[in-house]
Amino acid sequence: MTVLILTCEADVTADMVVVHLNASGVPVVRLDPADLTGSAALSGEYVHGSFRGHLSSGGRLVSINGLRSVWVRRPGTAATRAAEPSEWLTEESSQALYGMLRSSQARWMNHPDAARRARHKPWQLRLAQRSGLPVPATLITTFPQAAREFAERYPDLVVKPVSGAHPQDPPRAVPTSRVAPDADFGAVAYGPTLLQRRIAKRADIRLTVVGERMLAARKSTAADPDEVDVRFASATHPWQAAEVPPRVADAVRAYLRGAELAYGAFDFAEDADGTWWFLECNQSGQFGFVEVETGQPIARTIAEWLARPVPGEGAQVNGANTALT
Amino acid sequence: MTVLILTCEADVTADMVVVHLNASGVPVVRLDPADLTGSAALSGEYVHGSFRGHLSSGGRLVSINGLRSVWVRRPGTAATRAAEPSEWLTEESSQALYGMLRSSQARWMNHPDAARRARHKPWQLRLAQRSGLPVPATLITTFPQAAREFAERYPDLVVKPVSGAHPQDPPRAVPTSRVAPDADFGAVAYGPTLLQRRIAKRADIRLTVVGERMLAARKSTAADPDEVDVRFASATHPWQAAEVPPRVADAVRAYLRGAELAYGAFDFAEDADGTWWFLECNQSGQFGFVEVETGQPIARTIAEWLARPVPGEGAQVNGANTALT
Repeated sequence: MTVLILTCEADVTADMVVVHLNASGVPVVRLDPADLTGSAALSGEYVHGSFRGHLSSGGRLVSINGLRSVWVRRPGTAATRAAEPSEWLTEESSQALYGMLRSSQARWMNHPDAARRARHKPWQLRLAQRSGLPVPATLITTFPQAAREFAERYPDLVVKPVSGAHPQDPPRAVPTSRVAPDADFGAVAYGPTLLQRRIAKRADIRLTVVGERMLAARKSTAADPDEVDVRFASATHPWQAAEVPPRVADAVRAYLRGAELAYGAFDFAEDADGTWWFLECNQSGQFGFVEVETGQPIARTIAEWLARPVPGEGAQVNGANTALT
Repeated sequence: MTVLILTCEADVTADMVVVHLNASGVPVVRLDPADLTGSAALSGEYVHGSFRGHLSSGGRLVSINGLRSVWVRRPGTAATRAAEPSEWLTEESSQALYGMLRSSQARWMNHPDAARRARHKPWQLRLAQRSGLPVPATLITTFPQAAREFAERYPDLVVKPVSGAHPQDPPRAVPTSRVAPDADFGAVAYGPTLLQRRIAKRADIRLTVVGERMLAARKSTAADPDEVDVRFASATHPWQAAEVPPRVADAVRAYLRGAELAYGAFDFAEDADGTWWFLECNQSGQFGFVEVETGQPIARTIAEWLARPVPGEGAQVNGANTALT
């Protein structure tokens, strides 16, 4: 049973995981959907009520029914490196590839539907509330009057993009910033605006969850309490491994169950009382920088999750053993 | 409890359903996401562990928690009619709207995730097989050799686009066509190709399913047995109401359960033996033309599905009644 990694060529984070998979002897095929109809190819046959499919990438052929897991890391857009790329070819190739993979019994990190849903910040906030995570008071609105009333109740606010900032899309990386006390909210009418009560934080928390395993890292912000966006912070304090409070762990498990995610990178703000306030959960969040600074074995944990035998496979082995004893 | 219809302005099919909803006195709000930050607005507040959201459209305000159902008909792309449209505004508005709606307890026809998945033809074919529907032998491939071998086993083939032909995208409406006996499959390497055994059909079947209700229509093709794509057929034979064979009904129910769809328009080809061969299930398939020709009450059935009380609402009423008796 093979592990399929969907990612682009220059992905050193994927390389870190592949090293561990190779060391454990688990077959790995790496495929960039951008290579489709070039160095990547596919074929699937639906005959007599059954399906047999194959993918080929980098000269290796793998059966879709023989996939153990699929890791959707940083896949390129389908067929963009084809000889004659077009929107039509991208659509056809994407539908063919993901349509076949969706029929497989492989375990996904993360399933495309769960991944897509998980990108909706308003949905994240509601799921975090329901899971029992503390969520800073938040307003998403196009009504200037609603924004003004919210700012009266919560005078110390930050403003963020609703859609989050995706690492693959630099133009969208709008930093979180504080709202000036005399802000005029008239412009809210021209675009949905996310206002959130600012947490006076003493640390940023990055909690990386792989399956059931939680790896938390803490970065003190004591030197600069006004820093609001960790992604743009200076690197004075290093990330250090941290313990996850049991109540947070329970809530995070509930969140990931609800979100149907196998991997999630949570950002929390830790306040002076030690409360972890939920900011967001990025289903494709980077982990390389945390692993490097904390020494936490995130890549190895991902490799172990991907390498797990599929339920049917394990049961067969156990069954055979039982029959022999 | 209100019915929310997400659709564009000129949608006469939606009008047909609204007539029935109005007649039954169920509140309806119609919203085109394209109108966001113009004549449509939204606001949602996450405070103290709970969510309160509102939408405004055409001068009407509706609570998101007060939605009974959401009908995703033909929604425009978010914020494209805003004063200053941009990709960024579209993304922010789409995330805000659908992110909030996804948190609601409303019933969806159809849920965006289920709708998106349901558009994958390879996934449709596999689900149809698993549900027990007869599926014509099909190959989706970028390997010319696989195409040649398939054509040897099944000499009478049609070729179709993998991604289907979406009614909103005229450029994609590539008709299904027969494969010439001397076809050269070399070009298969340049784009995924869907080849399917041609069913010698005596009729086209359109089966419209709304919740548990099945409305089948039959259109004889006896005059032109070579016609392969009903969408491009001449209108000599009218659609007529038809019975659904019990085995097909069971399989269709299994399909829709697996697909998590509340609405689906199935296309079958009926062969000389009366077998219904699964061609596709369009989760947003048009039904106006079938209703007009057959007189089947599809719009009314959709209105009834949308108007159903939410489970909690019904339970409360029943509970109150029980307590009083």
